[in-house]
Amino acid sequence: MRLEKDCIGEMFVPDDALYGIHSLRAKQNFPITREHVNSLIIESYLQIKKAAALANQQAGTLNKEKATFIISACNQLLLSKDFRAMIVPAIQGGAGTSTNMNINEVVANLAMKISGEGSQDPVSIHPNDDVNQSQSTNDTYPTAGKMAILKALDPLEDMLKDLTHALEQKAEAYRNAIKVGRTQLQDAVPTTFGRSFQAYSSMFKRDLQKMKSFEASLEQVNLGGTAIGTGLNASVSYRQAVTPILSQVSHLSLTQSDDLVDATQNSDVFAGFSAILKGLAINLSKFCNDLRLLASGPQTGLAELSLPKVQAGSSIMPGKVNPVIPEVVNQVAFEIIGKDLTVTMAAESGQLELNAFEPIIFRELLISEDHLTKVIQTLIENCVTGIKVNLTHCQHEVDHSSISATILSPYLGYEQTMALIKKSEVTHTSVKQVVKMAHLLPDSLIDSLFSPEVLTNSKPIEPSESGSFVNSNR
Amino acid sequence: MRLEKDCIGEMFVPDDALYGIHSLRAKQNFPITREHVNSLIIESYLQIKKAAALANQQAGTLNKEKATFIISACNQLLLSKDFRAMIVPAIQGGAGTSTNMNINEVVANLAMKISGEGSQDPVSIHPNDDVNQSQSTNDTYPTAGKMAILKALDPLEDMLKDLTHALEQKAEAYRNAIKVGRTQLQDAVPTTFGRSFQAYSSMFKRDLQKMKSFEASLEQVNLGGTAIGTGLNASVSYRQAVTPILSQVSHLSLTQSDDLVDATQNSDVFAGFSAILKGLAINLSKFCNDLRLLASGPQTGLAELSLPKVQAGSSIMPGKVNPVIPEVVNQVAFEIIGKDLTVTMAAESGQLELNAFEPIIFRELLISEDHLTKVIQTLIENCVTGIKVNLTHCQHEVDHSSISATILSPYLGYEQTMALIKKSEVTHTSVKQVVKMAHLLPDSLIDSLFSPEVLTNSKPIEPSESGSFVNSNR
Amino acid sequence: MRLEKDCIGEMFVPDDALYGIHSLRAKQNFPITREHVNSLIIESYLQIKKAAALANQQAGTLNKEKATFIISACNQLLLSKDFRAMIVPAIQGGAGTSTNMNINEVVANLAMKISGEGSQDPVSIHPNDDVNQSQSTNDTYPTAGKMAILKALDPLEDMLKDLTHALEQKAEAYRNAIKVGRTQLQDAVPTTFGRSFQAYSSMFKRDLQKMKSFEASLEQVNLGGTAIGTGLNASVSYRQAVTPILSQVSHLSLTQSDDLVDATQNSDVFAGFSAILKGLAINLSKFCNDLRLLASGPQTGLAELSLPKVQAGSSIMPGKVNPVIPEVVNQVAFEIIGKDLTVTMAAESGQLELNAFEPIIFRELLISEDHLTKVIQTLIENCVTGIKVNLTHCQHEVDHSSISATILSPYLGYEQTMALIKKSEVTHTSVKQVVKMAHLLPDSLIDSLFSPEVLTNSKPIEPSESGSFVNSNR
Amino acid sequence: MRLEKDCIGEMFVPDDALYGIHSLRAKQNFPITREHVNSLIIESYLQIKKAAALANQQAGTLNKEKATFIISACNQLLLSKDFRAMIVPAIQGGAGTSTNMNINEVVANLAMKISGEGSQDPVSIHPNDDVNQSQSTNDTYPTAGKMAILKALDPLEDMLKDLTHALEQKAEAYRNAIKVGRTQLQDAVPTTFGRSFQAYSSMFKRDLQKMKSFEASLEQVNLGGTAIGTGLNASVSYRQAVTPILSQVSHLSLTQSDDLVDATQNSDVFAGFSAILKGLAINLSKFCNDLRLLASGPQTGLAELSLPKVQAGSSIMPGKVNPVIPEVVNQVAFEIIGKDLTVTMAAESGQLELNAFEPIIFRELLISEDHLTKVIQTLIENCVTGIKVNLTHCQHEVDHSSISATILSPYLGYEQTMALIKKSEVTHTSVKQVVKMAHLLPDSLIDSLFSPEVLTNSKPIEPSESGSFVNSNR
Repeated sequence: MRLEKDCIGEMFVPDDALYGIHSLRAKQNFPITREHVNSLIIESYLQIKKAAALANQQAGTLNKEKATFIISACNQLLLSKDFRAMIVPAIQGGAGTSTNMNINEVVANLAMKISGEGSQDPVSIHPNDDVNQSQSTNDTYPTAGKMAILKALDPLEDMLKDLTHALEQKAEAYRNAIKVGRTQLQDAVPTTFGRSFQAYSSMFKRDLQKMKSFEASLEQVNLGGTAIGTGLNASVSYRQAVTPILSQVSHLSLTQSDDLVDATQNSDVFAGFSAILKGLAINLSKFCNDLRLLASGPQTGLAELSLPKVQAGSSIMPGKVNPVIPEVVNQVAFEIIGKDLTVTMAAESGQLELNAFEPIIFRELLISEDHLTKVIQTLIENCVTGIKVNLTHCQHEVDHSSISATILSPYLGYEQTMALIKKSEVTHTSVKQVVKMAHLLPDSLIDSLFSPEVLTNSKPIEPSESGSFVNSNR
Repeated sequence: MRLEKDCIGEMFVPDDALYGIHSLRAKQNFPITREHVNSLIIESYLQIKKAAALANQQAGTLNKEKATFIISACNQLLLSKDFRAMIVPAIQGGAGTSTNMNINEVVANLAMKISGEGSQDPVSIHPNDDVNQSQSTNDTYPTAGKMAILKALDPLEDMLKDLTHALEQKAEAYRNAIKVGRTQLQDAVPTTFGRSFQAYSSMFKRDLQKMKSFEASLEQVNLGGTAIGTGLNASVSYRQAVTPILSQVSHLSLTQSDDLVDATQNSDVFAGFSAILKGLAINLSKFCNDLRLLASGPQTGLAELSLPKVQAGSSIMPGKVNPVIPEVVNQVAFEIIGKDLTVTMAAESGQLELNAFEPIIFRELLISEDHLTKVIQTLIENCVTGIKVNLTHCQHEVDHSSISATILSPYLGYEQTMALIKKSEVTHTSVKQVVKMAHLLPDSLIDSLFSPEVLTNSKPIEPSESGSFVNSNR
Repeated sequence: MRLEKDCIGEMFVPDDALYGIHSLRAKQNFPITREHVNSLIIESYLQIKKAAALANQQAGTLNKEKATFIISACNQLLLSKDFRAMIVPAIQGGAGTSTNMNINEVVANLAMKISGEGSQDPVSIHPNDDVNQSQSTNDTYPTAGKMAILKALDPLEDMLKDLTHALEQKAEAYRNAIKVGRTQLQDAVPTTFGRSFQAYSSMFKRDLQKMKSFEASLEQVNLGGTAIGTGLNASVSYRQAVTPILSQVSHLSLTQSDDLVDATQNSDVFAGFSAILKGLAINLSKFCNDLRLLASGPQTGLAELSLPKVQAGSSIMPGKVNPVIPEVVNQVAFEIIGKDLTVTMAAESGQLELNAFEPIIFRELLISEDHLTKVIQTLIENCVTGIKVNLTHCQHEVDHSSISATILSPYLGYEQTMALIKKSEVTHTSVKQVVKMAHLLPDSLIDSLFSPEVLTNSKPIEPSESGSFVNSNR
Repeated sequence: MRLEKDCIGEMFVPDDALYGIHSLRAKQNFPITREHVNSLIIESYLQIKKAAALANQQAGTLNKEKATFIISACNQLLLSKDFRAMIVPAIQGGAGTSTNMNINEVVANLAMKISGEGSQDPVSIHPNDDVNQSQSTNDTYPTAGKMAILKALDPLEDMLKDLTHALEQKAEAYRNAIKVGRTQLQDAVPTTFGRSFQAYSSMFKRDLQKMKSFEASLEQVNLGGTAIGTGLNASVSYRQAVTPILSQVSHLSLTQSDDLVDATQNSDVFAGFSAILKGLAINLSKFCNDLRLLASGPQTGLAELSLPKVQAGSSIMPGKVNPVIPEVVNQVAFEIIGKDLTVTMAAESGQLELNAFEPIIFRELLISEDHLTKVIQTLIENCVTGIKVNLTHCQHEVDHSSISATILSPYLGYEQTMALIKKSEVTHTSVKQVVKMAHLLPDSLIDSLFSPEVLTNSKPIEPSESGSFVNSNR
């Protein structure tokens, strides 16, 4: 064990530990979960430390030797992805200082270790003065957070794109599959599953578009602002160079915020991003609510869709199969909507020059992105791609739904049509039959109107074609 | 009293009432509040009815005479803004049908009345067949909702712009007013009120920008989609013409959605807009939390700001004055954040081809926009413009804050600086004095470093100027 | 106009106004809504002023003459319910001081007016020194808020009780109405509508019970605590007497909190009550979701229930009728859940010795109680009492649901039962028929098992009766 | 590998796995997190399986041999706490069926293994027919959920009790430590830290009381209701016996719900419990907001409290120490409030005879209980017990706060007191001095009034003592 000290006092640290006293204190102070800081944050932080070393060296405030060893340490950790020395918990007080100091200590110790390899004298590298040079937690931590969020966004966007593709394939496959429409859960005029699947795809495309548009906001970082955005203790040279260098190091398109004080103290960008994830959750939940409704049955529900059977559904009812995939999506959606509230409250609670609650914000957002990505994957693979439309049943429903008579309304008027529907229901005769028996319109027109193409307005009948609408010449 | 009938049965309606049986039933069914449908929705709906009449006439499905009287009725109502015949309550079941039917009935009855004026025979105009021709509640209601939201957005955006201006004037007035920064409510390196006010302005500008960007989403309407987006019972001619005509009638830049089924059934656009209002609420609340903190006192608080005194603060403590304007902003912010949850749940609960819960969505969003507009107005007028910085006190605080010694860190290193700060606190000597006594740096450099310009990094010292940073050559 | 002054300055007040400068300033400072302070709060406040005058007179700190006129003024306002002089808006900053001062001014001015009637010399009565004597906004306002909430709770509890009665009548009427059960929207073993309606009643009884239990928490007031709970400026005699007197005056069972500092600064009691309203909203929404599902149709939905038709459902689809009453309940439920978040944030944001955000808390809670009361009323009157079960259809569904075969499982085991169900589905033969054909169990036992009483377990078959379960002797 | 089959098809399962095909399918279907079902749920489920075996044996539907081996298997797992065979993820679709089937498979396989030990022929034990006999997921899963929640509640209640003790010790230690009160962040009449700490204790005691009162609701289980609460396939004997047996097995005081259908389908009990956790989170957050405010500084904040220093606070600002423990509490509070929304939405979304979203409800509640327990522990140990009041500074503030003059109001009236306060502020003279100079009251009375005991109303001055209040005889 080695003895380390800080402004609080002294503490023993295991001899071979890359972390130091600051990390160890944090581990003891925040024993809420065993969950460590998200590895995307760690990776991003290492890229920041590397970029900062390069920028400091370039500015002449960090000598080449130190810079080289710091960069080597960062590279080694980035390559190995061995983050076991990152011991601070994900849920932590202190606005991220524990995470930053854990990184600083690990990089400093590893850099010194590397410097001493091959019989060299180890170079003394200080976690604060060297690794953290020109930086503060308050600019590096939000920057690392944004980078991590951006990295986690990539797979989510890809998965969402896959979902829209899967839905479009269904739309193509069932382009002409007629079905009863339903508004307020009551029978409405017919539509097709082609249109329905297309509408879901349009909805998710909109989510995708919103995410992509939001990337620019996340790419604006406050690196160079140091403690409170004024940039104190960072040279002008460093402040100008570090963000472009970090973009190169990380392969992200980062830009420096125009107002570093604002970017340091306000967290609305995270609340804004959270709202976009919430929007996706709302849409996923709505979609899965619909799937569960349309697949209800098998004998006494709507039974328009058959979802792939992926597991037995009941420990007591043999043969029962449930829509477990949509159900898990609903639950993750509720989780994400809850997390949006957590982020909302954390963002609202920031005070003066800093929001101290960024750790919970980053944790929630990164979990949300991850859970959404994975739940969409199982939704695509275990549900959407295998959905089948029960064509016969759907056609049967359309044939027995009297509300299709709405199509007569332009010819006969709202009230006469209503009377015919009532008659159809009382006499248990199809509306088509009832209207024919009433001799109010030519049979050929009636046949045209009640064809699937016209009912679903896929091939609209125009006035010129149908004689003329009654309405216009009454 | 006149007797009217519908598919439920019969009902007496006051003889001179412009509304009819559908409106009256709704009034009786939904006695939750005495609050009527928002007048912006009514106005927008009248513009839709007018545009639809024009488009139907053009399509040849509505004869010129009827169209003319319908348009006259709409114009008369739009001009007089006398909406007393709109009796249906704001909180209503039925996905907006009651609102649409109230409009249809009022316009039809007024159009017939107009047609009968001057000894003419009144023309028979049907609420559904004529006024509602080619339309459904399900395309007109969301369209009217979006139009109303857009109209309410204008004054909100103007007010927000005013707020940013007011803040920038403060920033200009207090550009060099030095103050202690605070992170996690603990003393941090100094900044200026110029920077602080500027940061708030940047924050609100971002909200403004987000609103403006979102307008295009709200401008996309599903008019022409009729019942479920398939456009059944609307002629192709009408569907192509109605949105451009409505844009002219309303002076809004409306476009028709590419996927009318999607636009009819999914409400994520409203959830998305609600999230933007929530984002503004978060920022307003954060700003007002800061104002209340910075103005705390008068004797035992931070007392850096003096807010205008607008009313006596206590019934028991004479002379007490409280930050009532920021407090009311906080409360409206909480209200808006709550309403966002209402909208979230309503959007998530939509089923199949329609979201039946649009009435509560529109109500909440329109109230939110209105309350935000008004609360920002009182915030500007009764608070922001009159804020004064307590310059002497702020300077005094900076002089007594040992954390300013952070500026020594690049020269002396983190640990030596920490030791000096500790010494300053123990000996009750200013850090500047302590570091001078230690003869670690030239007095001239120390004086430069502790100047307000350098402390706030308004005029950064560069290595070339200050000799060189200690760090780089240790 | 008369000129009044306060610690801010001077202001003209209309000559005949009962309110004064404090009220007028508040009206100008908070122009957010035109909605005034809830009349239940005003009434409660007047009762407090009356009780305080009595207690102060008894304590010897207010002379009898003043006390008498103050009490007369309160009585007159309570009797007339003319609160037009209460001009301060419901949404207000200042922790309720504006409301209290509006009351103080109105009571003082009216008391003086009364004192001067009949040629007497008017007695000088001061809003703060006399009407507000021994009080602060910080003890009277929360007390008035709790009283108002309690008063609004009475009709809500009554209405909820009515709802449970209406449901129990339905349960009684449909005790033996068999129906398919559904778990996860998939067919499950049968049940009866008697059981279903009973279960809803049990659920709402639980809400009722929770409300009643919570009353004791609301009845604990902090009156006598004055500014921050220490009771400064209130005599010991007053502090002991005022709450019992207020109980008499208001006919509520109020008690004084044991820890007045706690009761003054913490708002968790309101958050706790809000959660109870949210719980009711959750249950109402769940119930109405079920109603809408079970009444879906008429031709292509579950169609097990017919809800009363209360209005035409579509402007374009003739004859369509929608479940508008459950829909409005859902929307109010979402509203209440949103308001719970507002109250949550307001409660969390209290600082140090007082929660400044009580005005929004009281406003939201009182609206929630009112909306819930009214929406339950329309739910009962326009929906629940008129619900009809479609008995034939429900029986038909049970007969065609193969999952009823679950009842065979204890005799044949899970896997053999599953095989029989599969055979039934493939051969389109009822499971009852299939199991008979398989000769696995005596026909008489099969008939017993598939009887409605046994399927719904209303009259359970026991091992002794049915031979014995296969399971136990396999 | 062994081949297993279910109603979906076949699947290979590792030969030595205690779990089976159902578990494996679930693992593949729900790859959202690597987090397994909470061990308290598993433990409770094993206790249920054991109790059910006992009750089934007693009812004569499960033979003694099978029962014995099932019980042995449960005991072995309960004792070893080796739950590695429980492979299904915490976030899962299917209303808990996967969890139940995982348990059924593991217990059945282990029971068979035990039965085969020592050269016996293994007894065939079926996961559904035997281990799950008389049960459904739909009664066992909510029962296990409630049991787990109750078990996790114990340590939370203990910890909360410890917190109230720690606060009361502080209250005792600082009983007479005078301080400025603050309402709306503005200086108010004085109080003591004794009162403040006591008030926090009272607040948390109320949370504790609410938890304890709620236990009875959680103890009501629906065991015996089987699939939908009708109790189908469970013998009367079993249904009567199983809950008392389970109480014995688990050492919990469980009771059977009076309405099993209600208890199976409605989740408001969980929403109700979640609201109680949210209430605690609100109070914790409020408390920690106050701590951070009162400890703000060290030089330019309120600085009334010193929190224990537990770690260095800044990577850039040497010597800075932050209130990291209160900060982590705030963040966990936001997390819990977010989770309450997740539970709210899940509870609201239940449909018909079952709430399919119980898995996310249980997961969130159990995490909330755990995080709250742990964060309160660090709050006590690393913060509350070490809090120190800065007595000199607090006294100094009281001496310089003019609002203490409120105590003169009963003698001099509101307006004259206000004038004296103004004079004090303008002349920079203490109010005590100003009032003495004005010769309005005897010096001895003034001295009495401004004594700490009287100012904080710890020893109230009564009219008899102080001459008489001016008010009463003006």
